[in-house]
Amino acid sequence: MNPYELSLTQASSAIADKSLSPVELTDSVLARIDAVDPHVNAYVTVTAEAARAQAAEAEREIAAGRRRGPLHGIPMALKDLIDTAGVATTSSSAVRAGRVPATDSVVAARLRKAGAVLVGKAHTHEFAYGLTTPQTRNPWHLEHVPGGSSGGSAAAVAAGAATFSLGTDTGGSIRVPSALTGVVGLKPTYGLVPRHGIASLSWSLDHVGPVTRTVQDARLVLDALVGHHPGGPASLDHPYEAHVARPGAGLAGVRVGVPVNYFFDRVDPQVEAAVRDALARFADLGARLVGVEIPMSEYVQATQWGLMVPEATAYHEQHLQTTPELYGPDVRVLLEAGALVPAIDYLRAQRTRTLMREEWNRLLDEVDVIAAPTVPATAARADQEAFQWADGTVETVSDAYVRLAAPANITGLPALSLPAGFDAEGLPIGPQLIGRPLGEGTVLHVADAYEQVRGPAPLAGRLPVRHRSAVGGPTRGQARPIESSFIS
Amino acid sequence: MNPYELSLTQASSAIADKSLSPVELTDSVLARIDAVDPHVNAYVTVTAEAARAQAAEAEREIAAGRRRGPLHGIPMALKDLIDTAGVATTSSSAVRAGRVPATDSVVAARLRKAGAVLVGKAHTHEFAYGLTTPQTRNPWHLEHVPGGSSGGSAAAVAAGAATFSLGTDTGGSIRVPSALTGVVGLKPTYGLVPRHGIASLSWSLDHVGPVTRTVQDARLVLDALVGHHPGGPASLDHPYEAHVARPGAGLAGVRVGVPVNYFFDRVDPQVEAAVRDALARFADLGARLVGVEIPMSEYVQATQWGLMVPEATAYHEQHLQTTPELYGPDVRVLLEAGALVPAIDYLRAQRTRTLMREEWNRLLDEVDVIAAPTVPATAARADQEAFQWADGTVETVSDAYVRLAAPANITGLPALSLPAGFDAEGLPIGPQLIGRPLGEGTVLHVADAYEQVRGPAPLAGRLPVRHRSAVGGPTRGQARPIESSFIS
Repeated sequence: MNPYELSLTQASSAIADKSLSPVELTDSVLARIDAVDPHVNAYVTVTAEAARAQAAEAEREIAAGRRRGPLHGIPMALKDLIDTAGVATTSSSAVRAGRVPATDSVVAARLRKAGAVLVGKAHTHEFAYGLTTPQTRNPWHLEHVPGGSSGGSAAAVAAGAATFSLGTDTGGSIRVPSALTGVVGLKPTYGLVPRHGIASLSWSLDHVGPVTRTVQDARLVLDALVGHHPGGPASLDHPYEAHVARPGAGLAGVRVGVPVNYFFDRVDPQVEAAVRDALARFADLGARLVGVEIPMSEYVQATQWGLMVPEATAYHEQHLQTTPELYGPDVRVLLEAGALVPAIDYLRAQRTRTLMREEWNRLLDEVDVIAAPTVPATAARADQEAFQWADGTVETVSDAYVRLAAPANITGLPALSLPAGFDAEGLPIGPQLIGRPLGEGTVLHVADAYEQVRGPAPLAGRLPVRHRSAVGGPTRGQARPIESSFIS
Repeated sequence: MNPYELSLTQASSAIADKSLSPVELTDSVLARIDAVDPHVNAYVTVTAEAARAQAAEAEREIAAGRRRGPLHGIPMALKDLIDTAGVATTSSSAVRAGRVPATDSVVAARLRKAGAVLVGKAHTHEFAYGLTTPQTRNPWHLEHVPGGSSGGSAAAVAAGAATFSLGTDTGGSIRVPSALTGVVGLKPTYGLVPRHGIASLSWSLDHVGPVTRTVQDARLVLDALVGHHPGGPASLDHPYEAHVARPGAGLAGVRVGVPVNYFFDRVDPQVEAAVRDALARFADLGARLVGVEIPMSEYVQATQWGLMVPEATAYHEQHLQTTPELYGPDVRVLLEAGALVPAIDYLRAQRTRTLMREEWNRLLDEVDVIAAPTVPATAARADQEAFQWADGTVETVSDAYVRLAAPANITGLPALSLPAGFDAEGLPIGPQLIGRPLGEGTVLHVADAYEQVRGPAPLAGRLPVRHRSAVGGPTRGQARPIESSFIS
């Protein structure tokens, strides 16, 4: 097994017992980036030289008995919305081309302190305002999008081009690409991880969190990120429910809510089948499945867009006036539309959110977590604009990908997408688990129990050679994820 | 001395030592209402019969040794925005004519539990959306407004027609009428007193608090009101800094900030002189006066109106569509204008508020309280629309009255208006003290020390007889507040 194939937990153990050095691991990941990123394009910037220096420093510290913890010497990527001192941070936008922050964001500083090695900045849908990340491709199938907006973060982890990464999630932007690329994506409780130093999309819905290969990995990264930051926006000063791995403990006593409305409407049958299969595994593990009625579901989309659109425009107001031509056309039209939203519509969305939070909190008195699809369909083709559903309705790719993710943004509840199989085309499927406020521990426990039974998800490492030339000019619907000829 | 002339503190002591009965006090206040309210019109509803029954019950309980505390048996008025079970609560609006709530607001329930006796519901500027309360007159001079929006609450206390009252304050609505009628008005820290069951004007700026004759009275009422209410909007779960009266302790060690900008711009010279005189008294008492620069003062008005106008419209949206004709023209035009405010302007106001709060908190690291005029002018004539300032500018009465009050609404800081003399026409002047978040104790301490030196403010009890006929057809500028012939 190549070092880049190791999960964070595995790599961390190997570094701890000195069977693996941070330099060896980092070199392996950098080589993997060289091999796959010309096809996947997960990275805006690769910081190879600095990463090698950081890894060498980590190696010296660990050799000297000063190992900082489980992230020490682990190569990782940060979404390009996240400020990194001395490293260009552009939000994948011409508006911020060449921008190099002087200081780290809080999360970058915390990862630096934990000894993690930055290998590069991952592509985002421009300013996180979209669900596809069109400049990046899905490593399972290069004709398909990785999802967004943290498409680069998820694609890098899925392809072995980073051991873990961070993404942000305003309307599903961690969970959607995690589901579509077959990795674990955790959107923590609103405010649990400080957002200071991260470009905002919609500050009342924004979250930052880990993208990893395994559930245990997500826990390790979350532990390094949490903690109140007094200077920043919306930073909670509460501890979250700790998760202690209990191998073999099963899910006895855990009540898993299964939505009887909303979350299985207009969902691809293959996605539904995979999610229902995961539910059956939870039950096999001892969980009690409880049918739950999702409250106020008819308001989810209006509330999500009603909050997000004007907040995004408010954040971009100045650049929108001075350099509108630097935005991509899809983002620009959304930002310009946001200027026309009346305050009373925004306020109606705020008030609806307050009621929705109360209703969801009541619902979560009855169950410990809610399990549902993260997205209603697997990864769309790069040239695809909409999904056609069995009921005859047509839905844009963005609307479809936001639809099931948005409740956890509106309510601020923790939500994790975990890999659970593939469709017939070999594209990954991800159910999500939604927990109580600060209930990350229970969410991780349920996901972990499932993963122990199913085994960790495979790496999308086996990129078919014939797709080398496919980026930019794909042939449709031919590829399979597992092929006999590999790039590396 | 008639019982209605007693302060809450005095009446409470007299009830405690059984030299005064709640029935005697309540009867005296009700008789005073009969005498003055035909002229002042402070009340929408007088609950004489229920008040007498409550007073009789209080008398029995106290006689039986079950005195509940300092408010037991004390007659008080509630602003008509505040829900009272079984008693009409109309917000002084035709929109809510005949509306009788089934349950008490949190503050009404807390006062009921403390044994206070409700004598009536006090007029508000319709739905609290104005600074004059035109239906009520200033008991010091019936040709003048009492200020607003808690004009009835302040006029009742000033005239001896309630021993204390509650008002609400979104842009000065407790402090402005308190200053203009010569009583003590306290707007507590945002969220300290629960607003559940009170009609909202602008939920991110709304506060509820006491209007009293003395500073000690304000403390007694505040103590009965505070405490987290989980179900309601924006209710803090923090204790406030307790105030313990320290007679004769002076103000040694207290740093009083004196604004060098904003708060003394476009202020009537008589108001400025009275406030500067109060500052000199603080210094005599041992306080250190420190010049302070008010931060971001050029944004105060845009921020206050930018938050308030759309929030008010959002609250009234439904009635505005179904029964617009039931609103008064001044309120209706503001509500209709609010529908046209873009969300990005509202969001700009929100973001400015965040920065303003941070700046004010930094300022309050340097001083313990800030002292400034509550309003730039004394009570306007009922027919007056604007003030003309020495610099040639003209300002509407509403704008002038909101201008100096708004910073404490935007920042959520506690602020108290205290009586400090009269202008040449005999109209009261009120400086305000602005404190740190939850710093009510220090604010009350400074105000109390001043009041001990100056003596409690006189009651506006001495209504000149010749004004009996003045309501509705005033003769201008003739009256003086202290006359030899009295109504009672």
